[in-house]
Amino acid sequence: MEYGEEELVACCGSTRFAQQLAKASPFSSLQQAIAAARDIWFNKVDVHGWLQAFSAHPQIGQSPSPSAHSTSAQWSKGEQSTALATATTSSLQELYEWNARYREKFGFVFLICASGRSTDEILAELKKRYPNRPIVEFEIAAEEQMKITELRLAKLFSTKENVSSTGGDQ
Amino acid sequence: MEYGEEELVACCGSTRFAQQLAKASPFSSLQQAIAAARDIWFNKVDVHGWLQAFSAHPQIGQSPSPSAHSTSAQWSKGEQSTALATATTSSLQELYEWNARYREKFGFVFLICASGRSTDEILAELKKRYPNRPIVEFEIAAEEQMKITELRLAKLFSTKENVSSTGGDQ
Repeated sequence: MEYGEEELVACCGSTRFAQQLAKASPFSSLQQAIAAARDIWFNKVDVHGWLQAFSAHPQIGQSPSPSAHSTSAQWSKGEQSTALATATTSSLQELYEWNARYREKFGFVFLICASGRSTDEILAELKKRYPNRPIVEFEIAAEEQMKITELRLAKLFSTKENVSSTGGDQ
Repeated sequence: MEYGEEELVACCGSTRFAQQLAKASPFSSLQQAIAAARDIWFNKVDVHGWLQAFSAHPQIGQSPSPSAHSTSAQWSKGEQSTALATATTSSLQELYEWNARYREKFGFVFLICASGRSTDEILAELKKRYPNRPIVEFEIAAEEQMKITELRLAKLFSTKENVSSTGGDQ
């Protein structure tokens, strides 16, 4: 399976990550792609690249910015669908306020792999992580980013498999 | 002993660090000032603040940039005096090349508390640290920055003590 830089940026918004993973493709399986992605993300992308990837995410509970990559924005919406379905006006307001406080302390958006999590679960996690030291939180955010990237690589992989199994020569 | 924001930026180039430490002063002893500085640096300054402080340093073996804070530039020169006295043209050249390689991998300048270290020692340390993961190296650089900050706070403290003991009323 071959990946292009453009579609990889939608999985993880670090330019260095997307370039290096595109260079390392094609991959024979999703597992192989994920292993390469983990190696690049944790060993080769520098701290600026981590910050670049974090800044590609909308604030949890908010719509992606108009400038966000369209595939990434669509995926964000899907990943947050449980949260949005379980949200009340007051829980969304509380999430909004805690997000602002988090951003003020750490200098980047609160990042969590939101798939399947309710607004209350996300809010509880935010409050639990808030007292962390900035460097500790920076690493946790990078781990969450990797979980999101893995989910998105899997989506990309299955889309491509579908395309190739229904493609011209079949 | 009271510290102003301006002189604290020369000890550590993070604006948030300097603001918060100035706000926490006066201090009754150097030890108290250092304890407050450590708390602010490791618990309150975010990753952008760390990067801001790192970028205030000249590359090891190089002159500070003309835009560098003048006290900070003078201190850098003093801290690197052993390294410069022990340098040969070829060791400086090697240091220059490894610095460039380090910066390319990590996205910030190689930081080491150079006081009393020879060029060879610094070069050996750079080569030893180069294989680290970016996040690991980021934390080591922050530790080295704190060592430099402590030395500089001590200098500031003794300068002020001298001034006050020879001052008007004495």
